[in-house]
Amino acid sequence: MGDPAGIGPEVIVGAWGNERLPQAARPFVVGHPEILRRAAELLKRDVDVVEIASPSAVDVLADSRVIPCLQGCGDDARDVPPGVVDARAGEAAYQAVRLAATFALSGQVDGIVTAPLSKSAMHAAGHHYPGHTELLAELCGVTDFAMMLYLGREHCDPIAGRHSRGLGVVHVTLHQSLRSVFDDLTAEAIAAKCRLADDAMRRLGVESPRLGVCALNPHAGEGGLFGDEEQTIIAPAIETARTAGLNVTGPIPADTLMLRARDGEFDAVVAMYHDQGHIALKLLGMYASVNITLGLPIVRTSVAHGTAFDRAWQGTVRCDGMVAAVTTAAQLCRSRPAPGRD
Amino acid sequence: MGDPAGIGPEVIVGAWGNERLPQAARPFVVGHPEILRRAAELLKRDVDVVEIASPSAVDVLADSRVIPCLQGCGDDARDVPPGVVDARAGEAAYQAVRLAATFALSGQVDGIVTAPLSKSAMHAAGHHYPGHTELLAELCGVTDFAMMLYLGREHCDPIAGRHSRGLGVVHVTLHQSLRSVFDDLTAEAIAAKCRLADDAMRRLGVESPRLGVCALNPHAGEGGLFGDEEQTIIAPAIETARTAGLNVTGPIPADTLMLRARDGEFDAVVAMYHDQGHIALKLLGMYASVNITLGLPIVRTSVAHGTAFDRAWQGTVRCDGMVAAVTTAAQLCRSRPAPGRD
Repeated sequence: MGDPAGIGPEVIVGAWGNERLPQAARPFVVGHPEILRRAAELLKRDVDVVEIASPSAVDVLADSRVIPCLQGCGDDARDVPPGVVDARAGEAAYQAVRLAATFALSGQVDGIVTAPLSKSAMHAAGHHYPGHTELLAELCGVTDFAMMLYLGREHCDPIAGRHSRGLGVVHVTLHQSLRSVFDDLTAEAIAAKCRLADDAMRRLGVESPRLGVCALNPHAGEGGLFGDEEQTIIAPAIETARTAGLNVTGPIPADTLMLRARDGEFDAVVAMYHDQGHIALKLLGMYASVNITLGLPIVRTSVAHGTAFDRAWQGTVRCDGMVAAVTTAAQLCRSRPAPGRD
Repeated sequence: MGDPAGIGPEVIVGAWGNERLPQAARPFVVGHPEILRRAAELLKRDVDVVEIASPSAVDVLADSRVIPCLQGCGDDARDVPPGVVDARAGEAAYQAVRLAATFALSGQVDGIVTAPLSKSAMHAAGHHYPGHTELLAELCGVTDFAMMLYLGREHCDPIAGRHSRGLGVVHVTLHQSLRSVFDDLTAEAIAAKCRLADDAMRRLGVESPRLGVCALNPHAGEGGLFGDEEQTIIAPAIETARTAGLNVTGPIPADTLMLRARDGEFDAVVAMYHDQGHIALKLLGMYASVNITLGLPIVRTSVAHGTAFDRAWQGTVRCDGMVAAVTTAAQLCRSRPAPGRD
């Protein structure tokens, strides 16, 4: 459910009415039923929020007018006012994602989709993670992970005006200062992200993913004139990835690569740092792009937008991102057996 | 004319046929007439390339089927093969831009528009500049300059689907390694770029420009968690700019700001480094965006694309960028008296 003060509850209820959801999955919400009911009322949706005690109860509730909800947080969360940072909301979001991850790790669900949380609220509740991604990596005991922003093919085509098989952007470094990027940008890290990107795109239905790797410096360093990480770090990483059988091109100046990727020349882009990937993919499809955590033993997607406190609980939000996050998670689940399941 | 081996000659000849050109300006080419004739032949354009001896001769040639050309480089340039780096081509491009700048500085022309040059070819010819911008700054004896990428209102509207008054992106740092950006990112430099951006947008017809300033770090540093340049450098710069009467907002996370600017909330964006601005504006309007050098005593615009050696001299290039560069230069000329002119 994410942070109850944000737009999470609204986008969940809004997405439930989308015809693609019941075709893709049998979802339920981990959150607070009363908050969901409030969102349904605000949006004037004819749905019943039905409380369930365990994930298995979803099987008997196959009705798109029913939102099964498993209470995953304390009752404190009900009193959180809309649109503000509140430690109780941060605690509720933390507990819900923790419980959902536990279900996924034990095989009780096939994957999880997260609504936005407020880092400030989570910090106020005493949980010091830069975001969902890092929290989930810790819960899963994983250190080799990455964040992919993904825009499905149905959203790429109208934008590019050309054929596309969907576009994923993987980040080598993520929630850290730009200054510290240089410490973490190693050939090993870049090659590892290429492997994760290749694997994810295959699971998303692309048979032979074509990967483009961003340069770090403008004009890819202009032959060493503006920096040499292209030669010393990125090119060797690409060589390693190629040796492993991947179809990788680069380093390509990031501004050119994003354009070429949009126009269908690449299926996935490996970006060196947060903004390099985010500027492009948010411009291409802010409301439709999906955040996928790669490298986890569980399937996890998320909406790419934030809590939008300034617009929360006004009944005016778009739920395209949540629909895309659920359908993408379902696609990833189908292409890999869930852990612990027979 | 730019590098004769690139797409410069083709985009010039192509742009000449556009009806907006004769309405906006009385342009002539500084380059080699024979190369232009070759481009006209390739594009099967019914135009006469007429050699002129001085800028004043343009006045008697007011016919859109005539391309006046002042030979601004040696005859060596004729022998340059298409699509490759060649020192002779680099020398020709260098000489042409130098001569054009001289005309502008002496008031013989109102402004200059440059076609793309190859930095490698210019370097091979012994001229060690990172690009046109830095070369022109030196020719003009200016150290406080900036590069703006500009997308005119006619190109913003169809993209954003909302009203816009045109969008400019100014770069605080430009052709340098990402690692060296931290050395040059000062509050003074950022405030100076805000002033240049405000001035340029006013000259481009925006009465009270609304400026948005990019953060350097992801999520604008997330309150100091991922870097503190937002508090120590960028916020003080914004304060300085506001004290000077500018309408400045920020620092805003770059991925969010670019989206908000596209949707019409800002008229200009101040980007901290090359890729931050270029990724966004190239995605928004690769073929229509114009490169404007701010802070020069002369008006200078350029196409935003490069020499495109891989597609040069095949007769298939788009000339929208050159049309936009000429009409934007004309707009800038009209809003400021040319130096040395009565």
